[in-house]
Amino acid sequence: MTSEYFHFLSIIGVAFFAISGTLLGHEKSVGGFGVVVVATVTAIGGGTLRDILLNKPVFWIAQPDYLYATYIAIFASILSIRHLPDLSNTTMLLMDAVGMAIFNIIGIEKALIEGADMVVAITMGMTTGIFGGLMRDVICREVPLVMGEELYSTACLSGGLTYAALFTLEVSYIWCIIGAFAVTVFLRLGAIHFGWQPNLFRKSSFKRS
Amino acid sequence: MTSEYFHFLSIIGVAFFAISGTLLGHEKSVGGFGVVVVATVTAIGGGTLRDILLNKPVFWIAQPDYLYATYIAIFASILSIRHLPDLSNTTMLLMDAVGMAIFNIIGIEKALIEGADMVVAITMGMTTGIFGGLMRDVICREVPLVMGEELYSTACLSGGLTYAALFTLEVSYIWCIIGAFAVTVFLRLGAIHFGWQPNLFRKSSFKRS
Amino acid sequence: MTSEYFHFLSIIGVAFFAISGTLLGHEKSVGGFGVVVVATVTAIGGGTLRDILLNKPVFWIAQPDYLYATYIAIFASILSIRHLPDLSNTTMLLMDAVGMAIFNIIGIEKALIEGADMVVAITMGMTTGIFGGLMRDVICREVPLVMGEELYSTACLSGGLTYAALFTLEVSYIWCIIGAFAVTVFLRLGAIHFGWQPNLFRKSSFKRS
Repeated sequence: MTSEYFHFLSIIGVAFFAISGTLLGHEKSVGGFGVVVVATVTAIGGGTLRDILLNKPVFWIAQPDYLYATYIAIFASILSIRHLPDLSNTTMLLMDAVGMAIFNIIGIEKALIEGADMVVAITMGMTTGIFGGLMRDVICREVPLVMGEELYSTACLSGGLTYAALFTLEVSYIWCIIGAFAVTVFLRLGAIHFGWQPNLFRKSSFKRS
Repeated sequence: MTSEYFHFLSIIGVAFFAISGTLLGHEKSVGGFGVVVVATVTAIGGGTLRDILLNKPVFWIAQPDYLYATYIAIFASILSIRHLPDLSNTTMLLMDAVGMAIFNIIGIEKALIEGADMVVAITMGMTTGIFGGLMRDVICREVPLVMGEELYSTACLSGGLTYAALFTLEVSYIWCIIGAFAVTVFLRLGAIHFGWQPNLFRKSSFKRS
Repeated sequence: MTSEYFHFLSIIGVAFFAISGTLLGHEKSVGGFGVVVVATVTAIGGGTLRDILLNKPVFWIAQPDYLYATYIAIFASILSIRHLPDLSNTTMLLMDAVGMAIFNIIGIEKALIEGADMVVAITMGMTTGIFGGLMRDVICREVPLVMGEELYSTACLSGGLTYAALFTLEVSYIWCIIGAFAVTVFLRLGAIHFGWQPNLFRKSSFKRS
């Protein structure tokens, strides 16, 4: 049962990240199949790192349907880009937010299944959620979202802490997932639409201390 | 027999990538042994990622002769750079093309040996062929070749599809290798000398749709 | 006994790298928890790559105390940054030098324990020492220290050669460690304070040849 949830969730997460990678690659005028390379790295980068760190078979090699989902999402995005009016950068950020929220959850869960400590599991969730998008931004020579002013890693961490809290309270899996997903996406939406910024460590905090 | 082909091919591929890394590092005025670091990452990066993804022992740890070949190629390039007139950027691109063509083939073949699906194998070939050069470009803060306007990942993919087609037709290994190598290098030469560009997904395609 | 030395050394190395990552992240005005992400990548990046290459369990998953040390060092640095006058960039470079010297040694030793050849072991030491800082610089879009004009990879390599020499002379572990550490840190201090540059392969060497 659980593994079905996670298989389905992973497919969705991979597709959202693939779309975000395609949109950024297109935005940066990447030629030819280069956009497929960026989008594929975005889609499978985080999960690949997670599986390597946990010393498990890499998910898209063990089950090629993740790779098919990635390529289908990429080609569907390319066709949409050609036939639709220009998509704003916001669409890319929304796709990234959903992908990050999903991979965060899967990273935590996979680490817990391997018997990892909760601090390790939350770190693994953030790694899985952030790494694909980070590689996308580095390859496209953009300022990584994780380095930006708006809530990003904080949103990911908040989702992870929500998951950990619900998990500790022995809430059923589906609600752990929904809770963590909702918190991460909500915070990212606030960051994207209202420019929410964490001011925990920023330089401006000097003035107040 | 086959494994001898691949051992020999890998040594050649590693050497070509090492030369391309040395040339770019030199071009960017990297000081001291930094150029050795860039060139080593370029030479062994793609194959290392391939072995990690397939969960095999990393090739240069299992067989240090790859590392010796890398270092010999680097020091030979450094000596040549000192004593020859300045090499153009084209030389770097040619070295990269040969390295990419070879690693593409080896990546596909190693994945097939592990029993991977053909789509996974072609993805693995592209990963192996592109990743070393991508790390070189990221570390040197250049626009990655894979993001450029000219045919690059398309050339790699075409080589992979050629290999897959010949392999499916049960052509002998040596001809699969020669065919895939020729297609990739031919397309890259066209891209380098005549500026061939794929216009499959570029923005200009908006005008036609 | 030996494994206790290395456990203790790793904790120290992780903490120094975590501080260097926090300082650079702060310098670049990274918002919110982004600075924690950069600092964590810096602290555990090199050792993680080492363990993946050697196909060993990743150190911070197997023993979460490394992760606790990382987070404690990060939060302590953040508090110090808020309450102390601005730290110069030199502090970051000093932290990085100590981290690099320590991880270099641990990388070599872990590779030798796995039965690797000395050339592989020295390569592994450099990988472990340099990779975390390299990821920090790439994510922060700085020129990687390893690409800079001053001694960096050369300092790391010199430490590695010192270790190899003392190890071959069957000097006891503690002196191998002290010797290699002293050589690397000494060369980096010279580079930071006096701008020592290797002129082995730089373009200026054309004039003399």
